[in-house]
Amino acid sequence: MNDDRQASLQSDSFQQQRIQFRRIRLKTNIELELFKRACLSSRAHVEMLGKTGILPADSAGRLCAALAEIYAELEDGSQAISDSDNDVYEAQERLLRDRLGEEYVLARTAKSRNDQVACDLRLWLRDVSLAIAANILNMRRTFLDLADRDIETVMPGYTHMQPAEAILLSHWWLANEARFARDFSRLDDFFKRLNLLPLGANVMAGTREPIDRLLVARSLGFDDVIENSLDAVSDRDFLIEFGAFASIAGLHFSQLGSELLLWATQEFAFAKIPQHLTINTAMIPIKRNPEILEVLRARPSLIFGRMVEFIVQLKAITTGFSQDLQECVLGLADIVDTLDLLLDLTVGLLPGIELDSNRMKQVACADLVNVTKALDYLLDKGVPSDIAARVIDYLGSYCRTRHKYLSDLALSEWQQFSPAFEEDIYESVSMEASVGAFCSFGGSSKEQVLLALARARQLLELDLVRLKQLESKFAGGQAI
Amino acid sequence: MNDDRQASLQSDSFQQQRIQFRRIRLKTNIELELFKRACLSSRAHVEMLGKTGILPADSAGRLCAALAEIYAELEDGSQAISDSDNDVYEAQERLLRDRLGEEYVLARTAKSRNDQVACDLRLWLRDVSLAIAANILNMRRTFLDLADRDIETVMPGYTHMQPAEAILLSHWWLANEARFARDFSRLDDFFKRLNLLPLGANVMAGTREPIDRLLVARSLGFDDVIENSLDAVSDRDFLIEFGAFASIAGLHFSQLGSELLLWATQEFAFAKIPQHLTINTAMIPIKRNPEILEVLRARPSLIFGRMVEFIVQLKAITTGFSQDLQECVLGLADIVDTLDLLLDLTVGLLPGIELDSNRMKQVACADLVNVTKALDYLLDKGVPSDIAARVIDYLGSYCRTRHKYLSDLALSEWQQFSPAFEEDIYESVSMEASVGAFCSFGGSSKEQVLLALARARQLLELDLVRLKQLESKFAGGQAI
Amino acid sequence: MNDDRQASLQSDSFQQQRIQFRRIRLKTNIELELFKRACLSSRAHVEMLGKTGILPADSAGRLCAALAEIYAELEDGSQAISDSDNDVYEAQERLLRDRLGEEYVLARTAKSRNDQVACDLRLWLRDVSLAIAANILNMRRTFLDLADRDIETVMPGYTHMQPAEAILLSHWWLANEARFARDFSRLDDFFKRLNLLPLGANVMAGTREPIDRLLVARSLGFDDVIENSLDAVSDRDFLIEFGAFASIAGLHFSQLGSELLLWATQEFAFAKIPQHLTINTAMIPIKRNPEILEVLRARPSLIFGRMVEFIVQLKAITTGFSQDLQECVLGLADIVDTLDLLLDLTVGLLPGIELDSNRMKQVACADLVNVTKALDYLLDKGVPSDIAARVIDYLGSYCRTRHKYLSDLALSEWQQFSPAFEEDIYESVSMEASVGAFCSFGGSSKEQVLLALARARQLLELDLVRLKQLESKFAGGQAI
Amino acid sequence: MNDDRQASLQSDSFQQQRIQFRRIRLKTNIELELFKRACLSSRAHVEMLGKTGILPADSAGRLCAALAEIYAELEDGSQAISDSDNDVYEAQERLLRDRLGEEYVLARTAKSRNDQVACDLRLWLRDVSLAIAANILNMRRTFLDLADRDIETVMPGYTHMQPAEAILLSHWWLANEARFARDFSRLDDFFKRLNLLPLGANVMAGTREPIDRLLVARSLGFDDVIENSLDAVSDRDFLIEFGAFASIAGLHFSQLGSELLLWATQEFAFAKIPQHLTINTAMIPIKRNPEILEVLRARPSLIFGRMVEFIVQLKAITTGFSQDLQECVLGLADIVDTLDLLLDLTVGLLPGIELDSNRMKQVACADLVNVTKALDYLLDKGVPSDIAARVIDYLGSYCRTRHKYLSDLALSEWQQFSPAFEEDIYESVSMEASVGAFCSFGGSSKEQVLLALARARQLLELDLVRLKQLESKFAGGQAI
Repeated sequence: MNDDRQASLQSDSFQQQRIQFRRIRLKTNIELELFKRACLSSRAHVEMLGKTGILPADSAGRLCAALAEIYAELEDGSQAISDSDNDVYEAQERLLRDRLGEEYVLARTAKSRNDQVACDLRLWLRDVSLAIAANILNMRRTFLDLADRDIETVMPGYTHMQPAEAILLSHWWLANEARFARDFSRLDDFFKRLNLLPLGANVMAGTREPIDRLLVARSLGFDDVIENSLDAVSDRDFLIEFGAFASIAGLHFSQLGSELLLWATQEFAFAKIPQHLTINTAMIPIKRNPEILEVLRARPSLIFGRMVEFIVQLKAITTGFSQDLQECVLGLADIVDTLDLLLDLTVGLLPGIELDSNRMKQVACADLVNVTKALDYLLDKGVPSDIAARVIDYLGSYCRTRHKYLSDLALSEWQQFSPAFEEDIYESVSMEASVGAFCSFGGSSKEQVLLALARARQLLELDLVRLKQLESKFAGGQAI
Repeated sequence: MNDDRQASLQSDSFQQQRIQFRRIRLKTNIELELFKRACLSSRAHVEMLGKTGILPADSAGRLCAALAEIYAELEDGSQAISDSDNDVYEAQERLLRDRLGEEYVLARTAKSRNDQVACDLRLWLRDVSLAIAANILNMRRTFLDLADRDIETVMPGYTHMQPAEAILLSHWWLANEARFARDFSRLDDFFKRLNLLPLGANVMAGTREPIDRLLVARSLGFDDVIENSLDAVSDRDFLIEFGAFASIAGLHFSQLGSELLLWATQEFAFAKIPQHLTINTAMIPIKRNPEILEVLRARPSLIFGRMVEFIVQLKAITTGFSQDLQECVLGLADIVDTLDLLLDLTVGLLPGIELDSNRMKQVACADLVNVTKALDYLLDKGVPSDIAARVIDYLGSYCRTRHKYLSDLALSEWQQFSPAFEEDIYESVSMEASVGAFCSFGGSSKEQVLLALARARQLLELDLVRLKQLESKFAGGQAI
Repeated sequence: MNDDRQASLQSDSFQQQRIQFRRIRLKTNIELELFKRACLSSRAHVEMLGKTGILPADSAGRLCAALAEIYAELEDGSQAISDSDNDVYEAQERLLRDRLGEEYVLARTAKSRNDQVACDLRLWLRDVSLAIAANILNMRRTFLDLADRDIETVMPGYTHMQPAEAILLSHWWLANEARFARDFSRLDDFFKRLNLLPLGANVMAGTREPIDRLLVARSLGFDDVIENSLDAVSDRDFLIEFGAFASIAGLHFSQLGSELLLWATQEFAFAKIPQHLTINTAMIPIKRNPEILEVLRARPSLIFGRMVEFIVQLKAITTGFSQDLQECVLGLADIVDTLDLLLDLTVGLLPGIELDSNRMKQVACADLVNVTKALDYLLDKGVPSDIAARVIDYLGSYCRTRHKYLSDLALSEWQQFSPAFEEDIYESVSMEASVGAFCSFGGSSKEQVLLALARARQLLELDLVRLKQLESKFAGGQAI
Repeated sequence: MNDDRQASLQSDSFQQQRIQFRRIRLKTNIELELFKRACLSSRAHVEMLGKTGILPADSAGRLCAALAEIYAELEDGSQAISDSDNDVYEAQERLLRDRLGEEYVLARTAKSRNDQVACDLRLWLRDVSLAIAANILNMRRTFLDLADRDIETVMPGYTHMQPAEAILLSHWWLANEARFARDFSRLDDFFKRLNLLPLGANVMAGTREPIDRLLVARSLGFDDVIENSLDAVSDRDFLIEFGAFASIAGLHFSQLGSELLLWATQEFAFAKIPQHLTINTAMIPIKRNPEILEVLRARPSLIFGRMVEFIVQLKAITTGFSQDLQECVLGLADIVDTLDLLLDLTVGLLPGIELDSNRMKQVACADLVNVTKALDYLLDKGVPSDIAARVIDYLGSYCRTRHKYLSDLALSEWQQFSPAFEEDIYESVSMEASVGAFCSFGGSSKEQVLLALARARQLLELDLVRLKQLESKFAGGQAI
């Protein structure tokens, strides 16, 4: 799926994505998604009721068949919730009754709306989270490929938005990749607490029937049950935990978008958005508005707000089930859609961005970086520090007035300021020497970056293995 | 419209509302709403261009006529934004070109997407805010009518959720009404800063054409222009100001819902939700789940989150126009829909709630209220305060053990604890005497409450006059 | 005071401020501030009790004198809340008892902690909000002075962070000033709802004593009483309304800081932070880290978070008094301190920022701005739009490759691309002509900007008059 | 330490805690805490520089000794940051220079403020998080002890705040414990990403010196280094991850406080706050204001707001180091103090709460629970469902009018409504039978609850083992 997405972004069908980010609409049909999970969980439950003898085998069989039918019709679009249904559970009962008459009521056995809404929400969130996890891994590969590509490109590293040291562009790509690697790790931890079955808690106290909750859990691909029945119907910790994961990932997108937006200014001139990803006024093809980056910067705000919404919904409510617990549904779908869009845009955008390595290098060489090396040079030569500082200050003014870089100066110019400067000053203020120097573990020298890249690829492989494990575990609960 | 709404809630067609709060969907078609405003603002602009001679009169006339046609088709549903339009402004140009050929391009004169999106958003927000204001006034009338109705009902007033003093239920209704009166006042102040025309700011620096911004402002019902062109395209203060208004109102709904939810518990037993507003399991008509109150309690959370979203969108962006400024649109529509629902539910719900005045009075009379009066009684009789406190403590234990109220005790029982108690103790611990005593301005005595009610009705009348003024002012910009 | 502040920032004593923004500590001693207001409100209340005969005149006199004494000792630092006091009200009673013995208990007459905490919080917030209002006006004058100073400076105006049109720097200063003018206007509206007396609501139902609430209101400088006693003790709307005002102002600071941070990059090179406002490593005087701008960008986040805190505190609580209502105090003080710091830093910083008008003008002239004018030129000459667009595209590439601006090209170079270009093309691509052209109301032409500046000074004068009115109104409640 | 805390709360020295929650002040001296960590990390770094030969062994030795001295003086309070220090790093250099003269400058080797602030913040947050983890385990033990104690107590379980089914109080305690068990699990996962060494990233590109980052990591008890140097100085994901952990735990406290507040109302009358934990007006010992529960309900709001603050601080910033990254410090300390207080209050409060098991049982038996059983009874007897529903409705009205419970009715009364009722109806509406029935896994029957309790104790033991592991791992970095 991810490959498809990437292709579509790079092809002319990107038009669709482009519209998406200026159009105002939701993508996920969350009622449909929950309805499908309601069929899956109901079927697993009824199957267990049949196996344990709580329901007669034939009744259980008919219920299972009917649920499979409804599921299939939801999938192919021939069936849906109607305007007169209060919610998907009413809709499900209506459709069951249409098929089975009054026998439909057996589907209620040892189950209530309270435990089932919790179950279906977890099933859906698990599936979409897994898709997000897959897309994160795919995006990380993009970052690593770009790090491979740009191993020779030098760029300025910044502190306080001032160029501080020359680094490799690959190092910057890897820093971005590392952020999203943490996001995957958080998502993986999150599954431990999400992927638990609440079904069987019934109204909130359990049931008189000798149900087998572990059987249902296994059949739906859950790791375990969420044991305490009161906790099972009311635990919504996962909303905040998911919201926090999504918020941190959202911050990563927002920071990436903000930095690229800076790079895309005329003043930085490090980057250009590819023509086909900009929305131009038809008349001025030369103007490339990086609206897509503004969307990366701004859109994650929705995620943060939705997490706040969840927190306030949950504040001050008491144990047991209440409608407050269901209020999160639209917000969750919104977060998922938003992450989806951010992942799509980023993967579609990054490989096509035109980076100007000459301009980057030029800024990386500029005085403010080299000046510290020139200062070190003087100190190494034994010039007292206050005098050295003054020399450097004058040098800086001299260069700025004449629009020159330190590396452009003739030796005679250097020596106007201090006789201590000799031919080897050019080695100090050479950018290549400088970048190569950061040879500590995790530093920006080419050698270190190549090692880091290899390690990052290894971690990505491990994460892919982990993803496959999760996919095959969850598969049980994903289709009939 | 409000009367209609109220009627529909009270009639059996309330079914629809009931569904609404469990169903997951948006009401406002925000793209359509903005599209209609785009026609209104474009027409006012083109008309001005004609009047000032910037465009030839006949071109201006044809453009105005075409815009009026498109508006009418949007109104009757025969025209809409299509999937291939990037946004409503592309859609508008497409429809204009269909009608006028290349002359459509004249509609762009002295106007850009940047100032127009700001203008159309303000036009729409102004209209829906006014509708909200009208509904708030309508709801306040409901509160006042209930205060009238319940002038004889005594209820306990609480501190720290402990009954503290007996008050009139009318006093409580008036306290609620006072909150929403402040909300109206905030909304009214808000219009001063919202109802300003950004159009004419063009891209963000103004235009070379000798446009007449005040003419456009007047024709669209704006109070004035937002002068500085850079400010005009980028000012989004109104998002937070509206968000804060809506959040405070949301808190009022959440607090009201929470208190009624408490009253609807079996333990308080002050209130029952009318049967037709509950969602029962079909089988147990006796059970009345107050889900509707849980929605009042929880749903405002969306508003708070959306306001946070706006804040984060606006953080750290720079002057001029950027796509970040358009990201608010769906959130705004969400807030408006939410306020709408909360107002509808409340007005539909309150008159039908069944209040048990006997139960309220019983709790209001209970020991914890009277005990302070018994203590005052002893102190008035000259009993030293430490002894009085001990006496009252014993009396309390005595009553609790025997499940009696102080007012139930025989004089002999009183005198077991202190000979200072005499026949007139019954006046002190009578609830009626107690309520009547709070005769200070704004207090809970019947006399004060009746005066307060009269003043509240007067203020409501003044606010209705203000509403009418706003309605007639805005009318210019509401239709073609 | 504001002048003092500005002076201190510009003098070498700015050292203190500099520390402040990296040091981690609170400024406002909020308990002391509330303690002082508790003395003021208690005294006004007791005075009224004396005048109305509820308390004997001599007792009232002694209480008033004692409260004045305590107030004075709090002012001069000789008295304070002690570690064993539960809160300032316990502390006040302790100090009164020390002075008056058991007569101190009369100070409790017809008053409770519930109405008094609301009263004292409003008194304090009113005073500090007024100081903030004064500082906003002072800062607005700074903006206007800078607009005066920079009336000849041309800068690029941006859309999507791309230079779009050349504007005057004065126009930019005025856009910033307009934002803070709205903030003042919001604060002024806020006082209408804040400056109301809750005292007299007593526990929450009023009192039996024939108190005169309006007398107390007048003596404390309140506009009126907050009437309904239940509402009076529990209304905390003003927390959110103040939080929203502060958040919007905070966004203005954050946006200003972000834009200046951009300007201070080496790549933009529009601005330099004055040496004495930077925190350098001692060794590299040339490096000027704009940490102060990062503080402007980041610090307002505290305000947003505190407002969220208030909202959650108030969610789902019921009428009457509860401790939840007091939880806001530290957050409020934090917001006030933060606004104070932001105002101080901004007023101290702006006049000293070194702006490079040549660099600004250079960017404002750059191709991306002029290119639209060259396109207009061709269209005016009747060149078909698709051909014109292609010509402009080629021209752009030509210039970029040769590092030239359009205005640098020889006529022969222009004519290589289209014979339609003639000598008058230089007028079109001249920046001066361009800026002058934005002559619409509120536009960026010098004439319009001068008019706007005059209007802004008039509004500032009116706001200063308004401030004086508020100051003299509030004065009653500010000292004994 | 936890035992001490508990003791202090239960002893009369609880006075101090009681003050704490009404007083307005911070507990953690965050600058001191960071200063101490700065000594620890500096020493580990210098030691490594000595071992790797980057610094001469004797210089490294003198620096280590001086750092140990400063640390000791900070510990015993004889040394502190002074008002003239810009931050703790300036303070540290000042103190080093006092001791070592210009040799102090060697401490800067291969290290910058940028990587060190990140390191010290992680060290401190790790330590306080571990203390929080220990307190959570301690509190969980309290919950389990209470579950042991209350195994015979029946209470109503609620849906929509209506009594739905009778459950065991132990079951409720276990549901609460399960929430905090998840919080511990989240904290444990969090350590994986927090406990990584950023030191060695230097300014942000690494260093030329052949440093050994793993050696430093081991010596400070870190699991590993945070590799990429750019990522190392700027990663603040852990702020949000910690904020989310703390927010979820905060919600658990707020929900617990809210529910107990409900139980402490006169109307529910399930619970009483012990006298010594209430703040009474001295005069009315009988009144027990549960302010402490309101603090549990409201105080977590601070945590949520601080997390929002962190998110906004991080939005839209670019890679590298900036002052924005340091703005979180006070907010973090605030969260830690708040969690600390919430844990203290809860552990001190819970064992002392007086629960009225009779009242709980009485409500659990009330009609609304039994009515579903009576309905089941009729259906089992073959009464058609519509008739059964009507019978039950009448029965309900009958009981309410007469203030009777179903279980109080004589058989003749039952049979007035339906002849289907026979003697065995009393078994159906007996509460004991009902509770015992919920025998499914995780259900509320005594048998299930005892098994659940045993499993919860096992998990607690495992978590204690895990805690010990973390404690011994971190120990390296906690003292000199």
